Amino acid sequence: MSEIVDWVAVDWGTSNLRAWGIGPNGAVTFKKTSPKGMGKLAREEFPAALDELLDNVAPARSGPLDVLICGMAGARQGWLEAPYLEAPTDLRGLLDGAVRPTMPDPRIAPAILPGVCQKAGADNVMRGEETQLLGLAALTPGFSGVVCMPGTHSKWAQLSGTRIEQFSTAMTGEMFEVLRTHSVLRHSLTGDLDGPGRAEGFAAGAAAGLDHPEQLLGTLFQVRAGSLLSGRQPDWCAGYLSGLLVGTEIGSNRHLIGDQPVPLIGSPALSALYAQVLAMAGARGEPMDATAIVLAGLKAARSFAA
Amino acid sequence: MSEIVDWVAVDWGTSNLRAWGIGPNGAVTFKKTSPKGMGKLAREEFPAALDELLDNVAPARSGPLDVLICGMAGARQGWLEAPYLEAPTDLRGLLDGAVRPTMPDPRIAPAILPGVCQKAGADNVMRGEETQLLGLAALTPGFSGVVCMPGTHSKWAQLSGTRIEQFSTAMTGEMFEVLRTHSVLRHSLTGDLDGPGRAEGFAAGAAAGLDHPEQLLGTLFQVRAGSLLSGRQPDWCAGYLSGLLVGTEIGSNRHLIGDQPVPLIGSPALSALYAQVLAMAGARGEPMDATAIVLAGLKAARSFAA
Repeated sequence: MSEIVDWVAVDWGTSNLRAWGIGPNGAVTFKKTSPKGMGKLAREEFPAALDELLDNVAPARSGPLDVLICGMAGARQGWLEAPYLEAPTDLRGLLDGAVRPTMPDPRIAPAILPGVCQKAGADNVMRGEETQLLGLAALTPGFSGVVCMPGTHSKWAQLSGTRIEQFSTAMTGEMFEVLRTHSVLRHSLTGDLDGPGRAEGFAAGAAAGLDHPEQLLGTLFQVRAGSLLSGRQPDWCAGYLSGLLVGTEIGSNRHLIGDQPVPLIGSPALSALYAQVLAMAGARGEPMDATAIVLAGLKAARSFAA
Repeated sequence: MSEIVDWVAVDWGTSNLRAWGIGPNGAVTFKKTSPKGMGKLAREEFPAALDELLDNVAPARSGPLDVLICGMAGARQGWLEAPYLEAPTDLRGLLDGAVRPTMPDPRIAPAILPGVCQKAGADNVMRGEETQLLGLAALTPGFSGVVCMPGTHSKWAQLSGTRIEQFSTAMTGEMFEVLRTHSVLRHSLTGDLDGPGRAEGFAAGAAAGLDHPEQLLGTLFQVRAGSLLSGRQPDWCAGYLSGLLVGTEIGSNRHLIGDQPVPLIGSPALSALYAQVLAMAGARGEPMDATAIVLAGLKAARSFAA
C-alpha cells in the first residue's frame, strides 16, 4: 500500500534524518526517521538512503515527487554542497538558492536548501537553523528579536520577520563534550553524572558564568579543584560544568536580549535549562516545539519559491 | 666514578623528571633528566625511577642523601600525596609541609614539597608552581605583584615577597590541545600548522581575545567559519586559535596587571607569545629562565626549614 503525498519535507542533520509526507491539503500524511545522518554517509550513499526512506511513497500528481531538504546534507562533506545566502538576507529566498542532486530514480526530485553565512570580520555559518528561523517567522508573524537555538553549536540570531539580520555561534554543547571526555576535568566527571547534585551544581555554575563570562578559562578549572578540595561529586561537577558553559553563553549575549521573551529552539531538556538560566539573568525564555518549527520552515520555504 | 654532592634538587613533573646535584658550596655539580614523569609511572615505580637517576651519586657527608622534590610526584595519583598549604601563605613554610616517602635504599632520603591550594569559593590548586614562585622571590627580593606562568594550566599568582596572596588557573594550553584534536575545529587545523600565516593569525586572535574575553565560546567557532568562508589556511587557523586563547586569558586578568612588568615563567617560546600579547594590552611581560627559577626555589625551600 502506498502513501499518497503532494511532496516530502526532510530535515537531514548530522546524526539522523527525518521525513514528513505532506498531503494535497497540507496535512502530514506520514513521518519517518532514519539514523542515516550526514555524518554516517559517504557522498554516494545519500541517494540510496533517501530512496529507502521513500519506499512505498507515491506522488499525488503526475510528474516527479518533490523532496525539500534542509540541514547538513548540503554541507561540503555532505551529499551536494548547497551555497550560503549571506546575512542580512530574507529567508523567503531559501528555495531559490537550493541545489538539486540527481537520483537514480528520476521520479524523485530532491532539492537541498542553502545555509546562511555571515562575513565581513564576523565569519559564521549555519545549516538547518535558517529553515527553523523561517518556520518561527511563519508561526509567529511579526516577531522581531533575538532567537536562541541551543545545541552542540548554539546559534543566536537577530530576526525581523522573515529577515535574518545577524547571528553568532557558541560552541557550548561541543565544549561540554570535549572537556568531559578529553580534558583533565574528566577525572572529576566519571561515575553517575545524573545524580541529585547535578541541579545544585548547574545553578552554581550558571551563576558563575552569567556573572563573569570573561573568566571561563579560569572557572573551568574550578571543576577539578572543587572535586580535589571540596569533595564535589561527579554529578555536581557535571552540573557545574554544564551550568558554567550555558551561563557563559547567555552572559556573553546579554546585550542582545530585550524585554520580550527569547524563543528557544532546541531539545526540550536543553531548552528548559536555557530558560532557567535566562530567568536567572532577569530575562524570559520561551521553549518552542522544534519539530513543528522545522516543518513549518520547510513548508514556508516551499511556499516562497520565486 | 661517583658524583659527590651535598643534596639533590628534583623537579618531578607530569611528563618528565629533572635532577640537579648541589655541591657543598651550593654549586650545581651535575644535571640529569629522565622521561619518567609522574604521568608515566605507577605508584610503586617511583623509588626505582629515583634510584636509577641517582646511580653514581654519593653524599659528601655521612648520613643519608637528602633529595628535595617538587611537582606532581606529590599529587594524589603520584608517588605519595603531599598536602596543600592554603593560600594566603608564606612559601618559606614549604619544607615543613613536605612528606617523606621511604626508599628501599635507606641511604636516600626523599622529601616531596607540598602544593598550594585556595578555598572559600575560589577552589584552586597548584603543584610545582609554588616552588617556582619561591624561587622568583629568592632571585628578585622585594618583588610584589602578579606573576604569570603560562602552560597547559597557566597560573596567575599575586606574590608579596615570599607570600602568595591568591592565584587562579586558566586551562589555556589544554584547551588548545583538546580543541585542536577533538573538536570540529580540527577540520581547519590539519596540515602545516607552522607556516607563515601563523603569526598573522596569532595577532588577529589575540586582539579578538583581549578585546572580548567574554565572547570566547563564540569567537572560537570563527576558526571554523573562517576556513570555510575566507579560505583561511591551517597555519593561520592554528595561530588564530592560539592567539584567541592567550588573548582571552590575558584579557580576563587585565585588572591584576599594574604598572610594573609581569614576570613570565614558562617555556621560552610560550613566554615570548605572552610577552607579545601583554604588549598589545599596554603591559610588559618579562620572560624568566624557568630552570634557574625552579632550582632557586628548591634551594630556598631547603634553606627555610624550621
